[in-house]
Amino acid sequence: MIISGKNSVYEALNSGKTLNKVMIAKNVNDDFSKKIVNLCKQNKVRFDFVDRLSLDKLSSHNQGYVAEVTDFNYCNLEDILNNKKGENNFIVILDNIQDPHNFGSIIRVCECSGVDGIIIENRRSCSVNETVYKTSCGAINYVKIAKVTNINDVIKSLQKQNIWVYACEANGENIFKSNLKGNIAIVVGSEGEGVGTLTKKLCDGIISLPMKGNVNSLNVSTATSAIVYEILRQRNN
Amino acid sequence: MIISGKNSVYEALNSGKTLNKVMIAKNVNDDFSKKIVNLCKQNKVRFDFVDRLSLDKLSSHNQGYVAEVTDFNYCNLEDILNNKKGENNFIVILDNIQDPHNFGSIIRVCECSGVDGIIIENRRSCSVNETVYKTSCGAINYVKIAKVTNINDVIKSLQKQNIWVYACEANGENIFKSNLKGNIAIVVGSEGEGVGTLTKKLCDGIISLPMKGNVNSLNVSTATSAIVYEILRQRNN
Repeated sequence: MIISGKNSVYEALNSGKTLNKVMIAKNVNDDFSKKIVNLCKQNKVRFDFVDRLSLDKLSSHNQGYVAEVTDFNYCNLEDILNNKKGENNFIVILDNIQDPHNFGSIIRVCECSGVDGIIIENRRSCSVNETVYKTSCGAINYVKIAKVTNINDVIKSLQKQNIWVYACEANGENIFKSNLKGNIAIVVGSEGEGVGTLTKKLCDGIISLPMKGNVNSLNVSTATSAIVYEILRQRNN
Repeated sequence: MIISGKNSVYEALNSGKTLNKVMIAKNVNDDFSKKIVNLCKQNKVRFDFVDRLSLDKLSSHNQGYVAEVTDFNYCNLEDILNNKKGENNFIVILDNIQDPHNFGSIIRVCECSGVDGIIIENRRSCSVNETVYKTSCGAINYVKIAKVTNINDVIKSLQKQNIWVYACEANGENIFKSNLKGNIAIVVGSEGEGVGTLTKKLCDGIISLPMKGNVNSLNVSTATSAIVYEILRQRNN
């Protein structure tokens, strides 16, 4: 996979991820390029200075930096669960999020708020691609993502392991009045359709952000941000 | 100004905003188009069925709906303040947000969370344009936005009116441990630069979201979402 942009390349190098090659625009020669070159040397990653035009062919908006990385390494559900050994699990399940910007943005939010891992469905969800990589601003290198065949099966399995699963939807219980401590997984749906009907039925409850306006529809990544930070607040108090 | 897309046109009509004209693609004939036509009739707005190609020339991604609206009507600082008469003011100040997607997304978040109004700076900020309109998903029709010459002067004026002003930045006081009840304004900076040094100095304090990961940088709209919802939580409890 090709990734591009200052931040993406820097974070990929910094995270110790396997990079095949880093390409830097010839006309770039500043402190940042020196930092990138040093990181390449430290991590024994091949780097080349190339024409800006060749970079632009690989990726637009590259800011002079492009890298070839190995494809994203999805983990298993167990890898996410083992993180915590049954205490204070904090999982985000994405139901049919297809927009790569939203996916990348949610990855970034999850990384910052200490989520253990993200679960996506094989068939319908957006996979990790260049746009996701870029939108995540490097967070993708640190977040565990499991790709599963059926999120409903996963929800049942999580519930057997004493993890409470909540769908995030309109007209549910006010999130500020819900007890979201302990083991928890939240299911976030796509903007148009929300969480699937069957999935919603399986969940232990529905939680909602209070809406105080006229339009009252949040983008899925800004909604997820407010929700995961409220969960973080509750478990740290 | 031209706005486009199902949601944008629907919300503009629904909000009672002044529309010069609505254009609907000829090949569209479904329940939604009937709803739009009815709203046009109700509001006495001229509507035409036109070739899809002519719509595409006016705006890409129009989903078959384009409208000509009067330019966005900015308000004064007083209009925002008068909303509350000195009690529980809740204001968001944008310091140099230039990305229209972020601006639109923040407008949407503010509308949902009951913010009284948004203040932007004349000179450096992104103004309300088509992208902002679209990204706000109609929220723009309900949110008060004041364009001022200098946000630092505004901050001083707010402080004189007993409004506490906080900069949202890294390494400040944990937002979950701060008292954010009463009259409050928050200042949100651009992703690259954050809140300006002088502006930060003027503020009564700096508040931060806790960061639990490695990358620890949130996009400005997801950060604003978590922050305004925490303020909403505190003032409703």
